[in-house]
Amino acid sequence: MPNTRNIALIGLTGLAGEALLNLLDEHEFDFEQIHLVDTEEQAGGRHMVKGHSQRVEVLERFDFSQVAVVLFADAWLASDWADRVVAAGCVVVDACGAFRHRRDVPLVVAEVNPQALADMGSRRIVSCPDAQVVQTLIALQPLVAEAGLQSLTIATYQSMSTLGNDEVEALALQTGRLLNGQPAEKGAFDKQAAFNLIPRVGELDEAGNSQLEQHLAEDVRRILGMPQLPVSVTCVLVPTFFGTAQVMQCRTDQPLAKARALTLLRRAPGIKLLDKPAAGGYPTPVSDATGSDHVWVGRVRQDDLDPAGIGMWVVSDNLRKGVALNGLAVAQLLIKDYL
Amino acid sequence: MPNTRNIALIGLTGLAGEALLNLLDEHEFDFEQIHLVDTEEQAGGRHMVKGHSQRVEVLERFDFSQVAVVLFADAWLASDWADRVVAAGCVVVDACGAFRHRRDVPLVVAEVNPQALADMGSRRIVSCPDAQVVQTLIALQPLVAEAGLQSLTIATYQSMSTLGNDEVEALALQTGRLLNGQPAEKGAFDKQAAFNLIPRVGELDEAGNSQLEQHLAEDVRRILGMPQLPVSVTCVLVPTFFGTAQVMQCRTDQPLAKARALTLLRRAPGIKLLDKPAAGGYPTPVSDATGSDHVWVGRVRQDDLDPAGIGMWVVSDNLRKGVALNGLAVAQLLIKDYL
Repeated sequence: MPNTRNIALIGLTGLAGEALLNLLDEHEFDFEQIHLVDTEEQAGGRHMVKGHSQRVEVLERFDFSQVAVVLFADAWLASDWADRVVAAGCVVVDACGAFRHRRDVPLVVAEVNPQALADMGSRRIVSCPDAQVVQTLIALQPLVAEAGLQSLTIATYQSMSTLGNDEVEALALQTGRLLNGQPAEKGAFDKQAAFNLIPRVGELDEAGNSQLEQHLAEDVRRILGMPQLPVSVTCVLVPTFFGTAQVMQCRTDQPLAKARALTLLRRAPGIKLLDKPAAGGYPTPVSDATGSDHVWVGRVRQDDLDPAGIGMWVVSDNLRKGVALNGLAVAQLLIKDYL
Repeated sequence: MPNTRNIALIGLTGLAGEALLNLLDEHEFDFEQIHLVDTEEQAGGRHMVKGHSQRVEVLERFDFSQVAVVLFADAWLASDWADRVVAAGCVVVDACGAFRHRRDVPLVVAEVNPQALADMGSRRIVSCPDAQVVQTLIALQPLVAEAGLQSLTIATYQSMSTLGNDEVEALALQTGRLLNGQPAEKGAFDKQAAFNLIPRVGELDEAGNSQLEQHLAEDVRRILGMPQLPVSVTCVLVPTFFGTAQVMQCRTDQPLAKARALTLLRRAPGIKLLDKPAAGGYPTPVSDATGSDHVWVGRVRQDDLDPAGIGMWVVSDNLRKGVALNGLAVAQLLIKDYL
């Protein structure tokens, strides 16, 4: 039986891995030992964990009997290794979505549906939804619990980091070239991204939805347990490096006064409410969300002609809050209550 | 009686004036003579009109009996001069919104409600709505005419040029400084604008709405003649220089199939439909809208669980299409049918 308070974190080289390492350096987590693990070619480096420098161990030679939970911050590695890890007696936390849409794998946002961890059954894999879904549900849940939900419309404002490091670098390069009067090179994009808006994040299906748009709708329905909920989503890439934002417009079952909505949001776990917009009190990716462990909510408004219409502006650090922290929080919940 | 086919254009130094001058240089309009007019300190320069270099005349000494219509591309000048211009026998086209919310002044989008020009009465001033309203209504009108409208949700992605030249320059300066590792100077903004998102365009009222958000809702209701229409608007400033975009989500009275919506949009005046998103066929500000005389529509989608739910991505050149061209088109309609 593996030690039930030890964890291994696998796949540290991407943006999600970097966000994980930052969190481990800055916060205490409820783990006894934390093993950093990566493939042979990436292993060997050192990172600070709980104030101590720690070596990255080699995945191919790692002894999984040392740990109870294995968190993957890389979807390819999760696909390749999850079955072996489960066979070794561990539970897998798939933070990057390799198992996101398997019906026998619970999809968990720590603040929203921790009880779904009880459904992991013998598969012993749990998955985390996309950062967009995490932010949507954390902001939405307190309102839905009080007033129900009839429909949801989301428009996203996503940074390059929601795609990956290549896109982050391509934005910097394009921007610099344009400011210097040179033509933008398209690089990772099919159209200029700098000083522009790209209303397509990923490939589109025949109905014209991107995979992310489809997943946002499906995962919100699944996690809220509302399979018939109308959800309209448009995902747009904006020329920012980090963070993600959404305009969310909900129609609740019961009218929900703005003052009550503010109270519910203020009390909710995982949320920082910043809603004094006349005095500059509204969250932005750069000033508030980036590097933060919270989903920031502001500009809460009740529709003037529809007392069940509530709008919000929601911002978070997609990598830190949406991926890394949710993954670690799910792992902590597993260790505390489900192993 | 002034010559009914001559026009004066007043206030040419701002971004809207610049967009007007570009149009006059590139297109033929149905005017006999076009007078360029500005205040004493701005007058004297020359611009190309219909292939001829033309001097900017002095407003304070201009003889208004030479023209039938006077178009103001500057709200301050319009406020100061409109009554004198009307007293001289001309009709005023207020392209920049000085008279936008007076009940006795018709608010006109050339493609959408030209018939409202008949209501100008003895006031003899007509006004043009904000560029956001122009783009919303041009894209919405063909669908509403066919299927009615129950509710509308809009999230904007507005460039710095929707605020003014100071903000355009501040974005360039901030961006350059950040790329060079220097701190961004806030300049015209209360938070960093470069590589960031500012969910507040203008001052906010007690209910938390900005003036533009309120006007978008009110003007859409007014021009569509639907005073009880629920309209939810969130205006967001994004780090782009020119153009404006909106995610529009409509709920129609009757179900509207996507194929039919595409047909309606393709036939509608003022619209370019670009909706082959899987092959890169979606409009962006830089690749399509900037410098264009059309409102570009793409990513038209019917909601999967609501046959009356239709979403669109709408992009236009806010200055050229939303202000300058609508103003000139309204002036042409006046001269053709109402003088």
